[in-house]
Parts: sequence; C-alpha cells; structure tokens
Amino acid sequence: MIPRPDDDNRIKIAPSILSADLSRLAEQVREVEAAGADRIHVDVMDGRFVPNITFGPVLVRWLRPVTKLPLEAHLMIHAPDEFLDAFAAAGINTLIVHVEGAIHLNRTIQRIKELGLKAGVAINPATPAVMLEEVVADLDLVLAMTVNPGFGGQAFLPGTLKKIQTIRHMIDEAQPACELEVDGGVDPETAPRLVEAGARVLVAGSSVYGAADGPTAGLKRLARSVGL
Amino acid sequence: MIPRPDDDNRIKIAPSILSADLSRLAEQVREVEAAGADRIHVDVMDGRFVPNITFGPVLVRWLRPVTKLPLEAHLMIHAPDEFLDAFAAAGINTLIVHVEGAIHLNRTIQRIKELGLKAGVAINPATPAVMLEEVVADLDLVLAMTVNPGFGGQAFLPGTLKKIQTIRHMIDEAQPACELEVDGGVDPETAPRLVEAGARVLVAGSSVYGAADGPTAGLKRLARSVGL
Amino acid sequence: MIPRPDDDNRIKIAPSILSADLSRLAEQVREVEAAGADRIHVDVMDGRFVPNITFGPVLVRWLRPVTKLPLEAHLMIHAPDEFLDAFAAAGINTLIVHVEGAIHLNRTIQRIKELGLKAGVAINPATPAVMLEEVVADLDLVLAMTVNPGFGGQAFLPGTLKKIQTIRHMIDEAQPACELEVDGGVDPETAPRLVEAGARVLVAGSSVYGAADGPTAGLKRLARSVGL
Amino acid sequence: MIPRPDDDNRIKIAPSILSADLSRLAEQVREVEAAGADRIHVDVMDGRFVPNITFGPVLVRWLRPVTKLPLEAHLMIHAPDEFLDAFAAAGINTLIVHVEGAIHLNRTIQRIKELGLKAGVAINPATPAVMLEEVVADLDLVLAMTVNPGFGGQAFLPGTLKKIQTIRHMIDEAQPACELEVDGGVDPETAPRLVEAGARVLVAGSSVYGAADGPTAGLKRLARSVGL
Amino acid sequence: MIPRPDDDNRIKIAPSILSADLSRLAEQVREVEAAGADRIHVDVMDGRFVPNITFGPVLVRWLRPVTKLPLEAHLMIHAPDEFLDAFAAAGINTLIVHVEGAIHLNRTIQRIKELGLKAGVAINPATPAVMLEEVVADLDLVLAMTVNPGFGGQAFLPGTLKKIQTIRHMIDEAQPACELEVDGGVDPETAPRLVEAGARVLVAGSSVYGAADGPTAGLKRLARSVGL
Amino acid sequence: MIPRPDDDNRIKIAPSILSADLSRLAEQVREVEAAGADRIHVDVMDGRFVPNITFGPVLVRWLRPVTKLPLEAHLMIHAPDEFLDAFAAAGINTLIVHVEGAIHLNRTIQRIKELGLKAGVAINPATPAVMLEEVVADLDLVLAMTVNPGFGGQAFLPGTLKKIQTIRHMIDEAQPACELEVDGGVDPETAPRLVEAGARVLVAGSSVYGAADGPTAGLKRLARSVGL
Repeated sequence: MIPRPDDDNRIKIAPSILSADLSRLAEQVREVEAAGADRIHVDVMDGRFVPNITFGPVLVRWLRPVTKLPLEAHLMIHAPDEFLDAFAAAGINTLIVHVEGAIHLNRTIQRIKELGLKAGVAINPATPAVMLEEVVADLDLVLAMTVNPGFGGQAFLPGTLKKIQTIRHMIDEAQPACELEVDGGVDPETAPRLVEAGARVLVAGSSVYGAADGPTAGLKRLARSVGL
Repeated sequence: MIPRPDDDNRIKIAPSILSADLSRLAEQVREVEAAGADRIHVDVMDGRFVPNITFGPVLVRWLRPVTKLPLEAHLMIHAPDEFLDAFAAAGINTLIVHVEGAIHLNRTIQRIKELGLKAGVAINPATPAVMLEEVVADLDLVLAMTVNPGFGGQAFLPGTLKKIQTIRHMIDEAQPACELEVDGGVDPETAPRLVEAGARVLVAGSSVYGAADGPTAGLKRLARSVGL
Repeated sequence: MIPRPDDDNRIKIAPSILSADLSRLAEQVREVEAAGADRIHVDVMDGRFVPNITFGPVLVRWLRPVTKLPLEAHLMIHAPDEFLDAFAAAGINTLIVHVEGAIHLNRTIQRIKELGLKAGVAINPATPAVMLEEVVADLDLVLAMTVNPGFGGQAFLPGTLKKIQTIRHMIDEAQPACELEVDGGVDPETAPRLVEAGARVLVAGSSVYGAADGPTAGLKRLARSVGL
Repeated sequence: MIPRPDDDNRIKIAPSILSADLSRLAEQVREVEAAGADRIHVDVMDGRFVPNITFGPVLVRWLRPVTKLPLEAHLMIHAPDEFLDAFAAAGINTLIVHVEGAIHLNRTIQRIKELGLKAGVAINPATPAVMLEEVVADLDLVLAMTVNPGFGGQAFLPGTLKKIQTIRHMIDEAQPACELEVDGGVDPETAPRLVEAGARVLVAGSSVYGAADGPTAGLKRLARSVGL
Repeated sequence: MIPRPDDDNRIKIAPSILSADLSRLAEQVREVEAAGADRIHVDVMDGRFVPNITFGPVLVRWLRPVTKLPLEAHLMIHAPDEFLDAFAAAGINTLIVHVEGAIHLNRTIQRIKELGLKAGVAINPATPAVMLEEVVADLDLVLAMTVNPGFGGQAFLPGTLKKIQTIRHMIDEAQPACELEVDGGVDPETAPRLVEAGARVLVAGSSVYGAADGPTAGLKRLARSVGL
Repeated sequence: MIPRPDDDNRIKIAPSILSADLSRLAEQVREVEAAGADRIHVDVMDGRFVPNITFGPVLVRWLRPVTKLPLEAHLMIHAPDEFLDAFAAAGINTLIVHVEGAIHLNRTIQRIKELGLKAGVAINPATPAVMLEEVVADLDLVLAMTVNPGFGGQAFLPGTLKKIQTIRHMIDEAQPACELEVDGGVDPETAPRLVEAGARVLVAGSSVYGAADGPTAGLKRLARSVGL
C-alpha cells in the first residue's frame, strides 16, 4: 500500500547535487529546500569503485551550513571505512555504503551508528537482493540503484522493479522503520512505478537540476507525479 | 636571478580552491581573478593516492565558464591516465601528475600533450630530484611539493628549499620554458624564500582563501611579498 | 528435454584453443572447423584473476581471418571493462565475463551489447546460482564452469551438475534464448551428463586438441557422445 | 538435537591464542591442553583482509611441538592460496579460509585437502548463508563468525544465531560430517545459545585466556555452560 | 667503439613476435631464424603493468620446439616473481623484468639465475639510469626501452639516446659482459644511432614482421643498417 | 673511523626475534638482554610487501613488559601509515619503514616522530642510495638491508657493502646522529666488514638465536668479532 502524502511515512524527495551547478551550490541547494525537498543527496565517487571522481568530506563541510535539510552521502568508494569519521566530522547525517565488494559490512554499519549517523546500504542493479539478508535488520535505509552508479543522466533500468518489490518485502518483515530509497533515472514517468514497487525516497538528479524550467519546477513536477 | 615583475617570466600566483568556500565557488574564483590571480589551481584527490577525496572533472566543467583564467588540475590520484580525457573534455588547461609510483610517465605526458594541454609533473618532499631527470625536457611545468599533499593548511617544509634549487638548475639546463611551481605552506613569509630558491609560480590556499581579511587582501599581501 | 540434432537449439561444440598447438593456430582452427565445430573458444587470462597468462586481443585479430566460425572470448581477467573495446575491434563475436568480483556487471553487459556483440557471464564452481538472478534476463549466454578456471586439462567437478540444472531452470523461465555453455573436463563421458543437466554448448579443450588421434577424431567422438 | 558429552560428535572447545600471553605461548597452550581443550585456534591476520596483523606460519612451526592438540589456522588474509603450503609445512592440521572476496574457493578447498589437511570456510556476520551453498558438501568445517573478525574481546552479535541455524540445516543435509564452529564473543552465557542454534565447536579467546581466574578456570566454566 | 661484425660481442637482432602473424607463428619464427636473427623476443603483457594483454608461458612452450634460437621474455607484468618458474618450465632462456615498481628486484634476479636462466632488467623512458645502479653488476642484460611499452609500432623516442650512453658507461664499468638491448621504434634509420649510443642487441617488431616486403627483407635491411 | 667500545657511538647489537623460539619468547628475549644485547628487533611482515606473515602489534604488547631494552619494529608491510598508532600504543620505541614503494615518506616519518618514537627508513639491496637523499636529515636510523627481506637465515649480499659506505657518507654529512643499521646474514665473519663499511648497529637473527651453542654464546661471539 502506498502511503498518503500526510502519512508519517510519506514519499520523500532527495535531490542529488551531482546534477547541480557546482559553481553556486549554496544557491542550488537553497532553491530545492524552498521547493520542498526532504534531504540532499551527495554522490561521493573515488574513481576506483566507479570510473568517476566527484567530491568528498570538504564539500560536505561547506554544504552543511547552507541548509537545514539532512545531508546523505552515497559512498561509491573503495574502502569506505577509512572515510566514515571524516564525513561525520564534516556534518553528514546519513552514510550509505555499497554491499558489493564489502568484506566486513556489519562492522561498517556498526561504526556509522557509533558516529551517531543513520546507516544505509546501496545495492547495484546486478546484485541479488539476498545479499542484504543479514544486514537489513540493522539498517536505517536501503538504496536500490536503478542505474549503474557513476554518472548522472542515465536511463532507468526497468528490470530493477521486481527486486525493489523483493527488498520491500524483506524490509517490511525484518525492519519496517528502514527506508527504501531508489536512485537512477527517477522522473515523473518512472517515479510512480518505483513507488508502486515499494520505494519511499526518490533520489532525483537530472529531473530536478537538469529541468529546462529549473529545479523548482522539476522538483514540483516529480512531487506531483507521486501524489505529493 | 629573480625575474622583475614586468618580465614575461614574472612570478605568478595560483590560488587553490581547496581552501575556498565550495558552496559559492564562482564568487570565490571571480574574486581572486579580479585581485590579480594568474591561474586557478584545482586539487584533485581520490582517497587512495592521498587519504582525502576532493573533486573531479564535473567540478572543472562548472568552473570553466566562470573565469577566463587558466585552470590547472593537480592530480593526486592513483591511475591518472584513466582520467586525462575527462579533464580535457571538462575544460582544463594544464594537467599535473605525480612522479611517485608512476610506471609509464613518459606516456602520460605524451597523452596530456596530444590532448592539447600543458603537461606538468609533481614531486613529493621525500622524492629525490633525480627522478625528474628523464622527463624535465618534455614538461611545461614542475610542481615541487613543499608539504605532503592531501590536505590544506599544512606548514611549509624548509628542507625542500635545497631540492627546489636543484630542480631550478635542471630546468634551466634542459628546458628553460618549463615553469617551476611550488605548493604547500606558501605565504608572505615563505614565498620570498621559495622565489629565491627558483620558484616562479606560487600555489596558495590558506594564505589567500583562508585570510582573515578575505581572499583579495590575502592574495595582494602574497603578491607584495614577492615584489609584484 | 534434450534437443534433437536437427533442432535449431541443437547441442553445439566450442573447441578451446588453450589446448591447441599455438605455433600453428590457423591450421588447428581450420581443422576443427572442417570437423564440424560450431565456434572457437578463446581463454583470455591475465595472471591476476587466474594464476596464468594466456592471450589477448592481438591474437584474436590474427585468428579472425582464418575461420568463418564465431569467436568467443572467456575473459578470466581482473577489470574486463577496460578491454571490451579492444576485443570488439579485434573481431570477437561474444564476450564472456565472470560474475565473481564484478561490481557493476549490468554496465559491463550493456557495454558488450552496445559494441554489437553477444554478452555472456561465467560462474565458478563455488559460486551459487543466485548470483545470476538479476542478470540472466539480459544475457545471450551463461558459461557454467565445471572446473576452476586457469588451466587446461583439469578433471570435471561432478558437484556442479546440480547447479547446471538450477541455471537451466533460471534460463528457461527468464530468457529461453540464452545459451547454457559448460567448460571444464568436457569429454565423451561427461558430455552426456552435462547435456542431460541442461547444457547446450560444450567447450572442449583436451578432448579435442589433446586427443591422441587428433582434433578431428576427438571432436567427432565428442559429438557422437551427445547424439550429434 | 544437542549431542551428549559422550557422543562422538560432542561439543568441542578451541581456545584462541589471540588472547593468550604471547611471550610464553608454550606454557599458555599446555595449560589449556591440560584443562581439556580440544584444539588450538590460531588467528592469522595480514592487515589487509582485516585491519590487524597477528602471526603466520613461523609461529605455527614453534607451536607445533609444544602440544598434541590439533592446530587450526583461521586465515583472515587477502590471498590465502599463496600461504597454504607454508602453513602445511609448519605443521597445521586445519586451514580455514573466508568465503568473502574468494574468487576460486573450490580450488582453495581442493588444495587444502591435497596437502592432507582439513578444509574449513569462514563466513562473516553480514554474508548470507547461501554463499556456502556450492562448497558445504566439500568441507570439514564451517566457521560462522559471531563478531566481525580482526580483534579479540568483541561482543557477540545475536543477529547471527538465525544464520547458524540455517547453516546447521545446510550441513545436516549436504555433509553431516562437517563441523559447525563459531567464533566471537563465546562465553558461558552465549555458548548454550550457540550450541542450541547448531554450533558444535566453540572458539574462545577472552573467556579462556582473559579470565580473571586464569585459563583453566575460564575453560572449565565454558565447558560446564554447555554441559561438558 | 662499435664492435665489428666478426666480434664475439657483435650486434645482435631480436625479432619481436608481437608484430608477427600469430596464426602461423612457427612459420614466422623459422623465417627470421633462416634470415639470420639471433634470438626471439617475446613480449609478455598482463593488462595491468601495461594496458594490453598478449601471451604467457603456454605460448613459449609451443614456440620452444620450432626454433633453435634463444627465447627471451620481456615481462611487462605486475608480479613477475609469481611467473618465473612457469616460464622456465616452458623453455625460456632469458627473463627480463622491469625496474619500475619492483620492490625486491635483487631477489627476482637471484631467482632467475637459480632457474639457470639469463637475467635482464628493463627500464622505461621516464626512469633515470641511477635506478639500475645496485643491480647492473648482477645482470646478463639491460633492456632500455625507447618507447613506452605496451604496443607495437610506436615511434622511437630520441630523448632516450643520452640515457643509453649513460647505461653503456655503467655496464662498461660494472659488468662488461652484460648486454645492452634496446626496444621500441628500432628500424634502419634509428638502429645506427642506437648502436652508436651503446646498444648491442636490437629488438625489432614492425621493421621486421611489418615490412612490406616480408620479414626476411626487413631483417636484412636492419642488419645492413648496422653494418652486419 | 670505527668507534671504540667505550664510545657513546659504539657498535650495538639488535637480536631479531624472527629466529627465536616463539613459543617461549620472554625467556629468549631475557637471555639476550642478559648477554648484552642493546635492543630487540621485531620483523613485521604482512604477506604482501614480502611473501611471509610474521607478527604485529599484539606481540609487541606482550613483549614490552618482559625487557627493559628498546624495541624496534621493521615494518615490511604495504601501508605502514595505517599501523603506526597501533605499534606506538603497543609500546614500540622505534618504527622503521621501507623507502621502496613509499609515496609520502616524509609524512610517515613526521607521524612516527609525532608519536614520540624514533623514525627509521629501510632500504633494499636493489634500491640506490639516492632514494634516501631527501629524508636522511630527518631520520634517527637508516636500515640497510644486506639480504632481501622476508625470511631469516639468508646469506649476506657482499654487493651491498659499497652502498653502505655511500650511506655512511650521506649520514655523516646530513645528520651524524642518525644510526646506520644493517640486517641480513650478519655473523662474526661479515660483521667486521659491515662495521668497516660504516654500520654501527647489527641486526642478528640466525647467528644469535640459531647458534648451536645457544643465543648467549652466539651473541658474545658476534660482539667479539667487532671488538666489543
């Protein structure tokens, strides 16, 4: 059942600054805050886990004072454990690490929580849902990738919808308070299908910051598409 | 002999955006441009070559239209060859790679030039100057590190002055058109000693963007310290 | 149900050149083509994913003109994404990558298809079939390893038969056009059991090129063992 | 059903020398041997698979003559295949490798057996039991981690109990002779719950060597807690 | 002083099979043997030390019986120590490893000699000659790269001539029996300059196997260019 | 000039526990302390920088209380920076890191000193002395390897004597307080030659702990060989 807009568990929108104008970030973030964004999504890439380098803790530190919204960092990096403390010190609210290639994921999640942050785990399109089985009960958030991470502006992979349903069931059973977030090709056309499959938080890059009529219009169009 | 301010080969200042307010980068860059900066220095870190992640090609792309100054990227990353094309496409003017750990440095320099860019090589404090011997004739720039790269705000290592003199002689003999740039702890106190040792381009982070009286005052103070 | 020899979906044989005389490869490939081979299997090893180095794109380039058969490369290499284009340019028809250690397998498969090639995924003996769950619908071929990859001439692992049945069911349900190929210890004794379990393409190294009475006899013996 | 103390398949205790006084190891090992320990557990760490370095083959070589108990090494190392022969030569009896990050786990298990040793596979708290599916039939031992490996003295993770039950069922079905060992936070309070869930071998570090009243008392207390 | 053709220390030519037709290698090797080649050069690449994969021990094994010439393998691979034994078993005569990135080069050289093989060290264009200082006395061969390794058909880098002179002096002083071989862009135009600078063995790929009038003509033209 | 035994700068002996009986380490260390050893040498290996795993911080922690001698750790490990704090906490007095493969060696040395420890740098047999040029002024100790590190009991490499002389001169000029220590095949025959070449601290493994007549006799024999 899809939550109604006035639910506590209502749909939330997380604009990704990967698609924003990075030369005037404060302005870009304030605009989506005013337009009703629920949190800010920061795509951290190290050029090794994904073939692109984006930004790290120092950018979070400058972003922190410009908005009251929660900041969440999606760590597309090789050895996330070495950077958890730096992001915490920079003012992040949520840290999301990948299940792929993780050796001691339980320890990483524990450490994120010890730092007083929310802990999320991201899962790539090709990775089966069962890989989340032993961690979902400990999570505040699952981030189901609906494109292959690394770049903005990619097309949604419809094959991921079924897995989102599976994860929805895993969460409902093991840890209902855990959020199910989706990232990749989220726009007014795909968003309703994603929400229907079980997503509750929508990361949106191009459809907000790349909108021809501006981020405010883009965000509001996306919000309307899911009944907000 | 130190060049006079009206020389073609005069001292140049390259503010590093690592110390700038990243939430309003356009503004910060335009301020130093107005104050007389000669180029903009972009510290690219991948969390592997150095224990910090900063920014990559996408930030260069947004920075490109906001200034007429040349942009130079100091690549503190593990496999720079994989990122040369992306930085070129983003609008960079100069690419600087490290001599440490490089296996095929001649190829990297060749590729940077094929892309129509200026090619620089950076050398860490602990690395002997002889490691530049076979590449200096092909370079547009040598970047002598005067701190260990990875973070802003570190104290200048005076032990590097002697090596700067050595590199100065290597350049004068093999390729006088090659610039000698220094990076790390450059301020009005250390800058004259660095210029005396042979430096001609000064990267400045904290002493410009971290100046209590603002970047313009900081940059002008630094410029005056070396007779500009 | 096992397909009859006149089926469109009949059993196919893919001799592996890993066991061929590499000093006269053209001759060796033409012999199996004349003897009825369906495709040529090229085992690419990098000494890192497996503890052996074999051959790469340049060999495929020289092999391409000597046969009309399709060429398929089994990439037992660490970072296959970096080599897809080179194999395509060399004239390969199918690229097979491993599920083990892959981080962005969906992207790799997409890229292989963008290059106009058939996309396959290989799975090692110790890896559970569920790891294919999210990719099987996108594949032209699954390669189930029946030995640990790295060397020719190893003995078939019977414990893999049950997993081949499982993969057969996954394919029949999700993507019936996807081929199920097996590799390792395939000979006239094991081949019927593999076909019974669901295999439709048989990679054969030693039992063809290592046959005491020559590749033609070896291949025909193998073909007869599966009713061809 | 939990085995009775006189069963052939009775509960066994494996003190871990990670918590012992390493300056007088012979003495420490002889004490637990006299107190009824069934085997000695050696935690091998390389600083890469886990963020700690402990000991390797040379320590096993000196340990071998001081006890008649079997020695088992838990390899928390990156490329275990390269060290199997050295541990065999040093006199180890059982080698346990991790399922996480393993590429050719079947080959590793085969090699351990070729060396005449018992073969075990360890599984981390965050890894789903299904990852053992294709190897359990070949194993002498499964080591279910009940903390994240790397350090002694950590608190037991109760979320692992359910997975221990699942692995118990996998073993009972596929290979009843395979031992189910648990490691992490095992003490008189957690041990009965672990045995109830299906564990038959208990690794104990702090609760034996860290006991305020000494290893003998610690070991006996643990033994009593599981009815020995 | 350049040796006369009848010297024991005369100029030698080593055709590289990297440029040969790999589908009929026996034929190609026999042709250059008949035309007067002194040894066969095998370029081993692993896709990691250089961005190309070529061939490994198995190809050497098939090449060994087709020629009486010595076979030398230039190991452009990441961890050469792990492959020395396999190349020795395959029948190689000389193993050449790179100085760049080597940690324990003295051990590698020792091991090559223990295997009864000749030991060589290769040096890239950007690497200073001083890096050979501590190993030259132990070597049978120094391979000075005159292009960046990884691909055939590249243009000679004239900047390497001076370093060849330096290495010539190092060899003459420390170990006159050590051969000085050059590799990259060697043709009838560059060969005399290389010999003049001190080279005594010429690796030739394109100028032999890529010759429009065939390998025999190519090799003879190259030989004549250096007075053979 | 070789120092007399009553000099402040007299020859010192550092027994290496790599060759000791690790099952009774306290006893073995106390014996050499009583016999006149000056410090205890701990060979830390991670199986990656060298092909052997030995021991880490936890062993140092247990060793600390059993002797009053200074403890020095020779870190033959891949990423020493990550382990400096753990060794300091365990009670080490001196940390020695390798120059080979180090990227930010100046930072590592700085960090060791910040921890209140003495800082040393080790150099392998194949590495030229010039690689120490920029760090020697900051060091408390240079460790010149006279075998390839990784195992005890190897034969001394006489080719390293000349480099020891070179390093002696570098130290005398840049930092006379820096100790010059040698490690590998040090025995009563080689020790005098090493001292003659400039060594002042002798690491001794086999010749002390492997002595047929025991460590005390071995150590005294070694001491006498250098006039102690």
